[in-house]
Amino acid sequence: MRYQAALQPVCWNGPQRNRGKCGLASTENHEIQHGVKPVKIAVVGASGYTGIELLRLLLRHPAVEIRALTSRQEAGRALEEVVPRFRNTAGGGLRFIEPDPDAIAAAGVQAAFLALPHGVAAEIATALLDRGIRVIDLSADFRLRDPTLYAEFYGSPHPAPKLLGDAVYGLPEIRAEDIRAARLVAAPGCYPTSILLPLVPLLRDGLIEASSVIANSMSGVSGAGRKAELPLLFCECNESARAYGLPKHRHLSEIEQELSRAAGCDVRITFIPHLIPVTCGIASTITATLRGGRTAADVAASLEQAYHKSPFVRLLGEGACADTKNVTRTNFIDIGWHHDARTGRIILTSAEDNLGKGAGGQAVQCLNLMFGFPPTEGLQNF
Amino acid sequence: MRYQAALQPVCWNGPQRNRGKCGLASTENHEIQHGVKPVKIAVVGASGYTGIELLRLLLRHPAVEIRALTSRQEAGRALEEVVPRFRNTAGGGLRFIEPDPDAIAAAGVQAAFLALPHGVAAEIATALLDRGIRVIDLSADFRLRDPTLYAEFYGSPHPAPKLLGDAVYGLPEIRAEDIRAARLVAAPGCYPTSILLPLVPLLRDGLIEASSVIANSMSGVSGAGRKAELPLLFCECNESARAYGLPKHRHLSEIEQELSRAAGCDVRITFIPHLIPVTCGIASTITATLRGGRTAADVAASLEQAYHKSPFVRLLGEGACADTKNVTRTNFIDIGWHHDARTGRIILTSAEDNLGKGAGGQAVQCLNLMFGFPPTEGLQNF
Amino acid sequence: MRYQAALQPVCWNGPQRNRGKCGLASTENHEIQHGVKPVKIAVVGASGYTGIELLRLLLRHPAVEIRALTSRQEAGRALEEVVPRFRNTAGGGLRFIEPDPDAIAAAGVQAAFLALPHGVAAEIATALLDRGIRVIDLSADFRLRDPTLYAEFYGSPHPAPKLLGDAVYGLPEIRAEDIRAARLVAAPGCYPTSILLPLVPLLRDGLIEASSVIANSMSGVSGAGRKAELPLLFCECNESARAYGLPKHRHLSEIEQELSRAAGCDVRITFIPHLIPVTCGIASTITATLRGGRTAADVAASLEQAYHKSPFVRLLGEGACADTKNVTRTNFIDIGWHHDARTGRIILTSAEDNLGKGAGGQAVQCLNLMFGFPPTEGLQNF
Amino acid sequence: MRYQAALQPVCWNGPQRNRGKCGLASTENHEIQHGVKPVKIAVVGASGYTGIELLRLLLRHPAVEIRALTSRQEAGRALEEVVPRFRNTAGGGLRFIEPDPDAIAAAGVQAAFLALPHGVAAEIATALLDRGIRVIDLSADFRLRDPTLYAEFYGSPHPAPKLLGDAVYGLPEIRAEDIRAARLVAAPGCYPTSILLPLVPLLRDGLIEASSVIANSMSGVSGAGRKAELPLLFCECNESARAYGLPKHRHLSEIEQELSRAAGCDVRITFIPHLIPVTCGIASTITATLRGGRTAADVAASLEQAYHKSPFVRLLGEGACADTKNVTRTNFIDIGWHHDARTGRIILTSAEDNLGKGAGGQAVQCLNLMFGFPPTEGLQNF
Repeated sequence: MRYQAALQPVCWNGPQRNRGKCGLASTENHEIQHGVKPVKIAVVGASGYTGIELLRLLLRHPAVEIRALTSRQEAGRALEEVVPRFRNTAGGGLRFIEPDPDAIAAAGVQAAFLALPHGVAAEIATALLDRGIRVIDLSADFRLRDPTLYAEFYGSPHPAPKLLGDAVYGLPEIRAEDIRAARLVAAPGCYPTSILLPLVPLLRDGLIEASSVIANSMSGVSGAGRKAELPLLFCECNESARAYGLPKHRHLSEIEQELSRAAGCDVRITFIPHLIPVTCGIASTITATLRGGRTAADVAASLEQAYHKSPFVRLLGEGACADTKNVTRTNFIDIGWHHDARTGRIILTSAEDNLGKGAGGQAVQCLNLMFGFPPTEGLQNF
Repeated sequence: MRYQAALQPVCWNGPQRNRGKCGLASTENHEIQHGVKPVKIAVVGASGYTGIELLRLLLRHPAVEIRALTSRQEAGRALEEVVPRFRNTAGGGLRFIEPDPDAIAAAGVQAAFLALPHGVAAEIATALLDRGIRVIDLSADFRLRDPTLYAEFYGSPHPAPKLLGDAVYGLPEIRAEDIRAARLVAAPGCYPTSILLPLVPLLRDGLIEASSVIANSMSGVSGAGRKAELPLLFCECNESARAYGLPKHRHLSEIEQELSRAAGCDVRITFIPHLIPVTCGIASTITATLRGGRTAADVAASLEQAYHKSPFVRLLGEGACADTKNVTRTNFIDIGWHHDARTGRIILTSAEDNLGKGAGGQAVQCLNLMFGFPPTEGLQNF
Repeated sequence: MRYQAALQPVCWNGPQRNRGKCGLASTENHEIQHGVKPVKIAVVGASGYTGIELLRLLLRHPAVEIRALTSRQEAGRALEEVVPRFRNTAGGGLRFIEPDPDAIAAAGVQAAFLALPHGVAAEIATALLDRGIRVIDLSADFRLRDPTLYAEFYGSPHPAPKLLGDAVYGLPEIRAEDIRAARLVAAPGCYPTSILLPLVPLLRDGLIEASSVIANSMSGVSGAGRKAELPLLFCECNESARAYGLPKHRHLSEIEQELSRAAGCDVRITFIPHLIPVTCGIASTITATLRGGRTAADVAASLEQAYHKSPFVRLLGEGACADTKNVTRTNFIDIGWHHDARTGRIILTSAEDNLGKGAGGQAVQCLNLMFGFPPTEGLQNF
Repeated sequence: MRYQAALQPVCWNGPQRNRGKCGLASTENHEIQHGVKPVKIAVVGASGYTGIELLRLLLRHPAVEIRALTSRQEAGRALEEVVPRFRNTAGGGLRFIEPDPDAIAAAGVQAAFLALPHGVAAEIATALLDRGIRVIDLSADFRLRDPTLYAEFYGSPHPAPKLLGDAVYGLPEIRAEDIRAARLVAAPGCYPTSILLPLVPLLRDGLIEASSVIANSMSGVSGAGRKAELPLLFCECNESARAYGLPKHRHLSEIEQELSRAAGCDVRITFIPHLIPVTCGIASTITATLRGGRTAADVAASLEQAYHKSPFVRLLGEGACADTKNVTRTNFIDIGWHHDARTGRIILTSAEDNLGKGAGGQAVQCLNLMFGFPPTEGLQNF
């Protein structure tokens, strides 16, 4: 991240720098060092768990300059007051402003990340796009191409159907070319990422029976957001494991949309999310029946072929199970698989950080594509 | 629990009672109070998590008299030294002895619980049965009727094939009559209990396609036993979720045996166990395709019919998900279900305590049947 | 617990009993069995963590008959709907009513437990006492004898100063005689219990310098109550440890009052509560300087003398550290100690369940004293 | 981190780079970019929790080149096999070798980190120093200047007393100049760091009574190491809080040594460590009596004066409590304080990551001093 003097009146906490401390994020001239011009960005709705993880990544991203940080609730406060973890870091002094599109545009922002509830996101996305700002939306508003599907799964008419034609589903391993050129990227949901990456190649290559797919996912509690609600209390989640959101969790809609695209036909699956007592991480276990004549070797080849150039997909190979412990706070997704020869099924296990590859990390990965940065820029965490 | 003076030389810690404290477990004359003669029992291998939970239940069971407590490792030590939770309770002074069948028989034991590793259990079971002691074995040694299946899943020849004909699979809700008369009960595994109880009625009533069954289970770490192994360390399990034991976990063998029995034909399923960071509890999520013409109402009727007289099976109804939080330290199993009309599948969720209904509680439930006690005797925990 | 037919119109869920299940709590005639007439009680404010734990204990208490269960928020709902853990237990069908003193009195209630916020508790306590109902208040309203101290620590004038003369501080190990006769018992706070029991004998016997006492306590999150607040979310508490409430946590007032009483002079201590990621349990670590000539043996003798007849105080002895793991869901408090000869200090460690001995269990212990039941009646959990 | 072709035969996994993936750690020429020549280092004993955290930091350190990685147990295996988190990162292919001083020297190593048990560390430190390699030892072997103190607290004679004169206690905020020039740095223990940083300035400035200091610390389980021992199992640590190691935990020796040095006189304190169910993090709460006439403002001034140039010490100010949640996986230590006017005590709270500022991060901070790198180089994590 890089700060310009011009920015300081807007959201830079001058006195902090004068405390005589060297903030942790580098303040060198990245333009010269990296030979790339940093992109000026905004993070809109930055005080939830996804927003905080986005900031954690963007504050250290060498080609990013944060020009605006918004939160209706925290406007006027410094980032480090709201998120004590950021205290004494170079960005800790950034101040939240109101989510005003004109103010964001006036700050010279080129791209905005939206970490807002669905419905709210579409409104500000429209305003920012109108002002020529590219948008990476982490809400569900632009993930579904069909507005009637949105109405079915989200319970209200789509708030900005005209923009749907412009939106690109932001799964870089599958849709890199489209993302590069997009002005509106819909970053995938956390569950869908963990399910699509293992399945898309297999469906594309015709290895599995589309109608046989069942996905069981276990998510950390941060996936439910930073909301003061009884079911999210420590004492309600600790020592608890349970399914929820059955049988039509909202994420099912985008999962089926993308699986259908890969399969070339309508795909209906069963998707069962669970809540478990970890802060971060999603582990998905997916079963599907192999099509006649297809083998575990075909599965391995399909996945290798799909991901051998993808820096964030780690294929653990046949016989290995993915563990969320190995991917938390990274942008990795780990994928392992087993052939259940007795039943003819393939069992795929995947693990990702729901806030990382499942949200903030993936959004940054999209940014890197959109602005021509190296794919792993700002994402070298492990 | 009740202590006789005669027992004291064997395993009673005299001085404790003289400390002037009133121990927590009642010492009244249960024979008169309840009109039943207490059964004299032994717990063999009582220092693991299952053994400790068994003791927690048996020490408060009004119709049980613990006459012997064995542990090769802890022989000579008092129970309360080994398990500080039992300090100052009436049974805390019980002393572990060596697992010697003659000593156990000499103590007048009528029934013995075996909380031992498989292989080891069969050997002592044989010796105890020879001495006229009824056995409730919590290991896997007598769960499978077919010794070749044992060899396939446990990797060694069955240690006592002659006894297999006598063994009863100890799932009281399904096999009550057999258990009542049995001299050798094989208490089911923790995973199997959570999968069989939801599925058996549906297969028996022909409601689901047997070949479509997939069971995903999440287990607390206590299920892996009290063993000093790296993967069970706090820092390895905390903030981790992962599948394991694929594709042929040992419990699969007994699950398929019992499902096949219910279905009246060979059943092959996919079973995927997971480890999650809770101490106790198993949540299982099971999917199956409804057979033509069958409905969710049929499922409800089948489960109601099967369990309306079972005090420990709580049917949460359609639309509810079971949560381990509500069953830990009880003998309950909660079962909920959803109809996924889009795919024609039924989704069953169950929750139990892996050490309770999945092990110790169920074993006590078998004891109640074997000795004619009320079904909930000693199991009224919540 | 025992239910009378007369009660059923008020708070009994008839249909449940007709389901054909045997509820888990016994419905035998305890009067005959135990030779004691059960006490008719009410639990007022029963939907928080303390209220739920109280109910868990009272539903199994053989000499208690729950006649009313109140919750402004849950009035009309069955207990088992609000607390799924209670499903299928004999009391699960009890229905919450509004906290109306007349209705409570009309139900024939002899004693009421109040699990309400301070301020609110005093009001209903007054009304219940006026109606001849004995009150065990688990709030802070009647713990302090001096209303100016209440105003200082709780920030508002005492709501019922006239009742203070009647109130007894409900620490059974210290104040048994007073509790027996009391019509208004103020059950101690969770932290105070864990600090007073180790310290009172030492101060009474003049073994430590009163001014040297420092108490550090770590509490599980349930101690903060069942409130939808951001700091109590799973993701905020998990992997977190922190002090809070410094330097004058409200519980300090009652700790000092009771220590002063034991010492016979004004005692001022430093008390530092901490929040750690466990659901239940308080571990307190207390340091104090031994007075001249006093030894660790004197400490041992003082504690032994104080508690050798107390069934719930477990003295672990010199050299042992108390662990919350061994006392959760019990009414025990474990106490160990070390002599730090290098500094002349005694280090005391105690562990209790904040909802058990620190709240609900202790309140039941008071009830047993007030109605002449055996001290461990209904509290034999481990 | 930077890899030279020359290193590859020793510990570089060639095929990984050829997989066609871009590893996550940069492979640019740091010498040119940063204008500093990278230091060639070894990590000796790299498979425990401290070793892994060290590697996590060093693999991303822009001025470090890892030339050797040793583990007696894992020799021959690739880092990413042993630590799956490192899979697909540039260093994941590094191979463990035997801890042979000659091999380490032959690899051109300039500095070695030792993450070994005490006793073992001294032996290899001697051999490495003899070969001209500077040593940063994370064990206790060189922390105490007085070998008799070592014998008292560690139970065996000091293994290399001749080296004690060369050893520098590696607390950069206190001993920066000495560290810069040192050939042997003894990185402080995790507890001592969290206690010394708040206290040293206050003792140096004569603000508190040295004899009044009491330190209570709560540590995550990783502090106990990666050892297959029963008390470290998930089920033993989860839902548990307890003191241990009383009254003379080994870390007390170095705490008192350094406090005495700051105070200019012998200091004896009471130190009480606790284990709580978090993976990482230490929270310390320290009380001390203010000396006559000293105020909270003096405390604030003393701490500000001591740390206003220290990038990793975050003074939260009076009235704030440190929370481990805000410092995990960083090199920060947070310090807050309260004045307990009623007792004349100051209460200091500190929070750090026991593996970060309490171990690996601090060792890297020492390296930066020893080789003239910017103080925050490689430590900009948050």
